[in-house]
Amino acid sequence: MNFIGCESSYNEADIVIFGAPFDGTASYRPGARFGSGAVRNESYAIETYSPYLDKDLEDLRIYDHGDLELPFGNAEAALEIIEQYAAQVFADEKIPVMLGGEHLVTLGAVRAAAKKYPTLRIIHFDAHTDLRDDYLGEKLSHATVIRRCYDILGDARIFQFGIRSGERGEFEWAKTRTRIQKFNFDELALLAKRLTEFPVYLTVDLDVLDPSEFCGTGTPEAGGVSFTQLLDAVKTVAGTNIVGFDLVELAPNLDPSGASAALACKLLREMLLMVGGKANE
Amino acid sequence: MNFIGCESSYNEADIVIFGAPFDGTASYRPGARFGSGAVRNESYAIETYSPYLDKDLEDLRIYDHGDLELPFGNAEAALEIIEQYAAQVFADEKIPVMLGGEHLVTLGAVRAAAKKYPTLRIIHFDAHTDLRDDYLGEKLSHATVIRRCYDILGDARIFQFGIRSGERGEFEWAKTRTRIQKFNFDELALLAKRLTEFPVYLTVDLDVLDPSEFCGTGTPEAGGVSFTQLLDAVKTVAGTNIVGFDLVELAPNLDPSGASAALACKLLREMLLMVGGKANE
Amino acid sequence: MNFIGCESSYNEADIVIFGAPFDGTASYRPGARFGSGAVRNESYAIETYSPYLDKDLEDLRIYDHGDLELPFGNAEAALEIIEQYAAQVFADEKIPVMLGGEHLVTLGAVRAAAKKYPTLRIIHFDAHTDLRDDYLGEKLSHATVIRRCYDILGDARIFQFGIRSGERGEFEWAKTRTRIQKFNFDELALLAKRLTEFPVYLTVDLDVLDPSEFCGTGTPEAGGVSFTQLLDAVKTVAGTNIVGFDLVELAPNLDPSGASAALACKLLREMLLMVGGKANE
Amino acid sequence: MNFIGCESSYNEADIVIFGAPFDGTASYRPGARFGSGAVRNESYAIETYSPYLDKDLEDLRIYDHGDLELPFGNAEAALEIIEQYAAQVFADEKIPVMLGGEHLVTLGAVRAAAKKYPTLRIIHFDAHTDLRDDYLGEKLSHATVIRRCYDILGDARIFQFGIRSGERGEFEWAKTRTRIQKFNFDELALLAKRLTEFPVYLTVDLDVLDPSEFCGTGTPEAGGVSFTQLLDAVKTVAGTNIVGFDLVELAPNLDPSGASAALACKLLREMLLMVGGKANE
Amino acid sequence: MNFIGCESSYNEADIVIFGAPFDGTASYRPGARFGSGAVRNESYAIETYSPYLDKDLEDLRIYDHGDLELPFGNAEAALEIIEQYAAQVFADEKIPVMLGGEHLVTLGAVRAAAKKYPTLRIIHFDAHTDLRDDYLGEKLSHATVIRRCYDILGDARIFQFGIRSGERGEFEWAKTRTRIQKFNFDELALLAKRLTEFPVYLTVDLDVLDPSEFCGTGTPEAGGVSFTQLLDAVKTVAGTNIVGFDLVELAPNLDPSGASAALACKLLREMLLMVGGKANE
Amino acid sequence: MNFIGCESSYNEADIVIFGAPFDGTASYRPGARFGSGAVRNESYAIETYSPYLDKDLEDLRIYDHGDLELPFGNAEAALEIIEQYAAQVFADEKIPVMLGGEHLVTLGAVRAAAKKYPTLRIIHFDAHTDLRDDYLGEKLSHATVIRRCYDILGDARIFQFGIRSGERGEFEWAKTRTRIQKFNFDELALLAKRLTEFPVYLTVDLDVLDPSEFCGTGTPEAGGVSFTQLLDAVKTVAGTNIVGFDLVELAPNLDPSGASAALACKLLREMLLMVGGKANE
Repeated sequence: MNFIGCESSYNEADIVIFGAPFDGTASYRPGARFGSGAVRNESYAIETYSPYLDKDLEDLRIYDHGDLELPFGNAEAALEIIEQYAAQVFADEKIPVMLGGEHLVTLGAVRAAAKKYPTLRIIHFDAHTDLRDDYLGEKLSHATVIRRCYDILGDARIFQFGIRSGERGEFEWAKTRTRIQKFNFDELALLAKRLTEFPVYLTVDLDVLDPSEFCGTGTPEAGGVSFTQLLDAVKTVAGTNIVGFDLVELAPNLDPSGASAALACKLLREMLLMVGGKANE
Repeated sequence: MNFIGCESSYNEADIVIFGAPFDGTASYRPGARFGSGAVRNESYAIETYSPYLDKDLEDLRIYDHGDLELPFGNAEAALEIIEQYAAQVFADEKIPVMLGGEHLVTLGAVRAAAKKYPTLRIIHFDAHTDLRDDYLGEKLSHATVIRRCYDILGDARIFQFGIRSGERGEFEWAKTRTRIQKFNFDELALLAKRLTEFPVYLTVDLDVLDPSEFCGTGTPEAGGVSFTQLLDAVKTVAGTNIVGFDLVELAPNLDPSGASAALACKLLREMLLMVGGKANE
Repeated sequence: MNFIGCESSYNEADIVIFGAPFDGTASYRPGARFGSGAVRNESYAIETYSPYLDKDLEDLRIYDHGDLELPFGNAEAALEIIEQYAAQVFADEKIPVMLGGEHLVTLGAVRAAAKKYPTLRIIHFDAHTDLRDDYLGEKLSHATVIRRCYDILGDARIFQFGIRSGERGEFEWAKTRTRIQKFNFDELALLAKRLTEFPVYLTVDLDVLDPSEFCGTGTPEAGGVSFTQLLDAVKTVAGTNIVGFDLVELAPNLDPSGASAALACKLLREMLLMVGGKANE
Repeated sequence: MNFIGCESSYNEADIVIFGAPFDGTASYRPGARFGSGAVRNESYAIETYSPYLDKDLEDLRIYDHGDLELPFGNAEAALEIIEQYAAQVFADEKIPVMLGGEHLVTLGAVRAAAKKYPTLRIIHFDAHTDLRDDYLGEKLSHATVIRRCYDILGDARIFQFGIRSGERGEFEWAKTRTRIQKFNFDELALLAKRLTEFPVYLTVDLDVLDPSEFCGTGTPEAGGVSFTQLLDAVKTVAGTNIVGFDLVELAPNLDPSGASAALACKLLREMLLMVGGKANE
Repeated sequence: MNFIGCESSYNEADIVIFGAPFDGTASYRPGARFGSGAVRNESYAIETYSPYLDKDLEDLRIYDHGDLELPFGNAEAALEIIEQYAAQVFADEKIPVMLGGEHLVTLGAVRAAAKKYPTLRIIHFDAHTDLRDDYLGEKLSHATVIRRCYDILGDARIFQFGIRSGERGEFEWAKTRTRIQKFNFDELALLAKRLTEFPVYLTVDLDVLDPSEFCGTGTPEAGGVSFTQLLDAVKTVAGTNIVGFDLVELAPNLDPSGASAALACKLLREMLLMVGGKANE
Repeated sequence: MNFIGCESSYNEADIVIFGAPFDGTASYRPGARFGSGAVRNESYAIETYSPYLDKDLEDLRIYDHGDLELPFGNAEAALEIIEQYAAQVFADEKIPVMLGGEHLVTLGAVRAAAKKYPTLRIIHFDAHTDLRDDYLGEKLSHATVIRRCYDILGDARIFQFGIRSGERGEFEWAKTRTRIQKFNFDELALLAKRLTEFPVYLTVDLDVLDPSEFCGTGTPEAGGVSFTQLLDAVKTVAGTNIVGFDLVELAPNLDPSGASAALACKLLREMLLMVGGKANE
């Protein structure tokens, strides 16, 4: 079962969706492993047409690969499988769209992206800094993923928005290394203008949203952004040169009404239409 | 068990509440059949007094008929029972207030209303257009209900607000036939002024609300209006000549905390006080 | 298991947290008895550091006593145990922070506070007036708790904010006795300035929040304040001379995603940092 | 809404059903307060006819009074209301059938029964002894209810079956005072024969059932009896002179599938047919 | 996504699985529409190998067609689609295996079976008689489905087992027309021997199981058979000439732990191995 | 918070309880990480006294260490921490009792046990064989744990009971290496007699129970044993020389009524009384 309206073959596609159903380092409530499946299932409750953008998924060429088969209990092995698949998509000059899974899966895609695009920038929407150097001794964790991306990209290449939780030390560390916009997207438009000539990977941890609109995630943090604000933000980023993006941390088992999965579907549709629409022009 | 504070007899009542516990055409998550019952049950957790309006249900004359007995699996038969009851209420110069059930039940009430009031207008609050001509071959469906109302009323008589989902073709079709206000209620005040001399039937699909405030519905759509905005909107419509209204698509089984049912109760209280207060003056 | 970051001994502490797991008078959905336990458990999903205040719980001296052992089915006996414990904390010149439990538990703490501080003022955040004289004949009830506080303090000493539900008679009665700000915190800043020389007890019924952000409570009332607004409001009150405060009416059993408990944890952290930070200066 | 098939008036009835929606002393998971309402609601999913007994509720004369209005947080006041109502039913030579609520409500009915029938015997089906003298200092509690009944009836009048949980001291105490059949109903048939000339009150704490068949209760205890065994047991007791009975401790909020409420409905139907059938003969 | 281990093409297959996701006449708790999908999804938590039969699905030739697309709110139209598909499978000399959906879907398959096999017998496992002539005036309903089958087959062709609920009139009516074994499968072995020369359609309403083992169904009835008993029973029936069978009334939304869906998967595996194993020999 | 009645210090204790909250290799529904915590929390709903054994936990010397702190996403690191702690307990001549967590945690304890007791035998209660050599390429998995134990112990040292699921190849492999009793405990008594002179480690995967009695586990398998049968079985094993045991695979998030956690508490109490009672004699 594909995401609604994504019926192209791999070869003809401009965009390639794939799932990374891994949540092996989730330290609190697991369930993000079911995220990508839920997004596909629930997508049949939305339409392919966006009244926001007046565009329709049926006009795009998108391939949905389904989920990668990832081992449990071995984060590095999972990341290698992800990196390998993403690298193939990049090699074929297509845009990978990864559906988590927990946030650590982003590292696999970023490894591939950084090899393909040496000047890569990352735009990161999240409630949490994800900048720890290790978590209970582990280097690979949802709580360290952006720090590991930093290890690849270095200073002034990662831009974090919506952040409202982290250890004091993480905020300290970030001051000279990444740019953190706390709580909202205020500086995003400015940034997007400055980044137009760089390849951009966008990683959206859905817990950047307020839990009122998105309760289906393992570590809900009050005081988040609204769906409408997030939609505006991704539209802003869509004005840059997006080479790949992901949506992570939907845990549908924590969302009894299905509203979180439905929101993720709608967000994905809009993002596909924004990014794929450009590919089409 | 009546809705709280609605203890009048049919004969003395100005307003008649009845339930239409039908969800036979629900294409996704069913449960709206339990909506009217939940509203009555949960109403004992609110007060009869409104601090918004400084009015009290105890000052009004409202009869709660309970639920109609509707057959399952036969939409047309259900609609006939609804139409018949609504027609009786109209004949007795009372205001019918229908609690769904899925949105299709509106068609029964609108059939009766249009016979009683040939110049009827419909104001429609919803996340979805509901303008398909058929759904999987069926003419009678929650996804076609406003189209069926159009078949009765014709051009320029239906006004849709809060719409944020539909097929491209529905929006196209609507351009010359109904008026669609996407996303919000911006033009409602203007419209209400222009409609003052017409009889108005108001149909509120509760999924017009944002799922953050109302997750208890089968097809939640992110980006909706807030309770406060909806309260303002119904207040605006209450300034017209409302001859009947309905609240549909509460599916309490999808609302584990009970907050959606509680919201519906509060909204119903406010609407009764707005409409019934006038009847009282 | 303590609330995260609250590892001081009683003797060295400036602030003393204790739980009052009582919901014996809950008239609708019970479960607030599990509130204090859930707050401690869930606190390990947040950080001790606040990016809002740039402060860290680890810099404060807070003791978490755990839950009081309260009898079920005997409200007066429960209140006596609460009063006794709160009185001891006051006697030791510390600030008690009580985690409910239902709202009635506030009466125990207020009895102790009023004895210690004869000029005590109460600031009360709630969706409901809680001003009934009795509830089904009972004088001690979550629906009468502020009325019982009034019996102790008398006119013009209680200030209520966010109120959006109550009987007509309660609002009438309040006019000459307490000050009710309906729906929001508009007059709070003004009030805080006028109260600077008085000892203030702050009681936060968490249902003052909109159910979209806080569904884990027994009587959710649409149209509430947001977490951000509440955070601003407690910050305003923190500018007065707070001698104690409580958070009540979290019912975690009604919060399947855990988002309500998480919000309560975050709010508590912020309040501790606001109040304890001052103690530290 | 009555229990299905119970449509007689009070005056013509042989049996009188009433609800006692009180769970104020529940020490663990509350929710039994919703038990009687759930039984009525769910009864429409069963039939009035029993293929077990080949009898039909429609042939009996049963009145369903609905729920008593009981105060929260005051166990003694609740018991007085229950006693008063039960006494009236006894005075009118009818058989009271009480739907809990927690087990403490049994005490109200037993007080009335013991006044009417000085030689009363109690048959008690339960997982728990309920023989504590106090619980956290309270004499009135679901954990003390049979002890309080003993205070009225004295030695050798109470017969307990299915018991599989209690403190060591309770079992000790019981040795010379009540008769405890652990785990099952083995001695019940014998007892029933010996009791034929005495008036019998049967109290069924539904947690006597195995949690596999009845998870909707606050303190589930593995190793219980099956529905079929319970059905046989109540049939055995129905051979005595039952003057009243109750079903307590259904907590429908802990029963997401509704199967526990459905079982309670079916059990109640069978018991009514067994007891009322005799009244009919 | 196929049922686990069912990877053959239609042409090479001996057995054809298809889903009938319809629950439009459900009169109580809907959700059976999600049954067939849940069975496929959950099948990946079981193995293809049966330690009961020492056989493996991988040795059989089974095609899984997925779900039929059925209209909502129009029972007759849905039945026609089902009949048409089943007729095709019968025409190709394959064995259709239908996954409900509600029980009414059986009528579509039985219509096709009776045309193909004029001497067809039906073996029916269920908690309910399903013999009403109409339900709220509707001839097509889950509560009338076996009556409608009788209209096709006539006297002494339908054999019902496990029945423990129905109206008095249904049991009366059945006495001279079908054979009802109440509560269990006692006479099944005898019957199976007598039926060896007839084509048999087996319809399994999963609510024949005790709700303790299968709570995921709309109308749970205490006192049912165990999984082990059901397994034995289907094994007995497998000794006859089964020409088709179905499993209906799994409502996964009522099964929070997933145990009901898992049981249905395991049962289906065993039935496929029993029936398909023969086809293989 | 300790398990009820386990208040001894480490030094004075004969038995040491510790939790292993790891579920990193769970391939289906995670949540076993919450198992040990739930067992402690829920233990306050049972009594310390067993009417089955007429013994009381208060007479034993048991220390509850709480949970080990285990890293997520690194199975080997988690196993090392477990092994180290268990080795310490063995070194101090105490009996370790481990609460899972998923089944893989058993490997850590068995490594320590096999070093301490070179002639160790394992008795294994489970629905699943757990004998795969790898799972999706991983050697360390809940599905391979008994195979890894075999790697340590070799032929004829592992005895498996209750098994009802596995791949064909696993059953084949086992024939000459372990002893598998399918479905039940039939040969257990015989085995226990033969093992009296060997040190025995008992590992109980709680999914050996039927899902009707224990739905709170990730891969429920119909057709399991009952609580009473399991109780008898552990009693039989208690007659051997048990040097350690574990209870694994409780996933309380899949158990909305709490009945599974309650069963696990009761089972643990009985096992402690059986094993610790001997230590006491």
